[in-house]
Amino acid sequence: MKKINFMVEESVDYIIIHFELEEPILPKILQNINPPKVYSTKGIILSGRGPIWLYSYLTHYYHPIKFIATYDPRLGGAVIVESHNPDYKPGEIIKVDNYEL
Amino acid sequence: MKKINFMVEESVDYIIIHFELEEPILPKILQNINPPKVYSTKGIILSGRGPIWLYSYLTHYYHPIKFIATYDPRLGGAVIVESHNPDYKPGEIIKVDNYEL
Repeated sequence: MKKINFMVEESVDYIIIHFELEEPILPKILQNINPPKVYSTKGIILSGRGPIWLYSYLTHYYHPIKFIATYDPRLGGAVIVESHNPDYKPGEIIKVDNYEL
Repeated sequence: MKKINFMVEESVDYIIIHFELEEPILPKILQNINPPKVYSTKGIILSGRGPIWLYSYLTHYYHPIKFIATYDPRLGGAVIVESHNPDYKPGEIIKVDNYEL
């Protein structure tokens, strides 16, 4: 069974949820996916190499969270795509330092 | 000003919202983006070549819609990523025929 491996890394201001794919995945994996639960008042950063539909799925999955950003290696940071807090606005970039995942 | 051009194409079962970028965009464009409003009981398919953060933003933007799918040219169809209707389940693929956009 193809798998998505999730890793969770918490920092002061946000939680990084990083995924790695063992091999290319098919959409039906969404029917059995189990992303890590987040019980936090912090926002999250989604990170990993994967298809757009996986990112869109995860964006919805985590929508109650304070804010959601997607890591973009070309920008050296994560772009806020959704927020319930006026201090974090869509389109802003969160610098992610020493990011080793 | 860099622009995102949106096109809307309605079919029997869904509405395709296709975007084209005149040139590479930066995340701050999300602060002035104006995706087309959809007043419909149908679901939508997002389509276009663009960054993951744009797709994640649009997925959230349209979240009240019946279902949201993202078009994947490699699959020849659109993957349902979010749904409020049990007839459309995340991970299912909607075949998109004669798609010319």
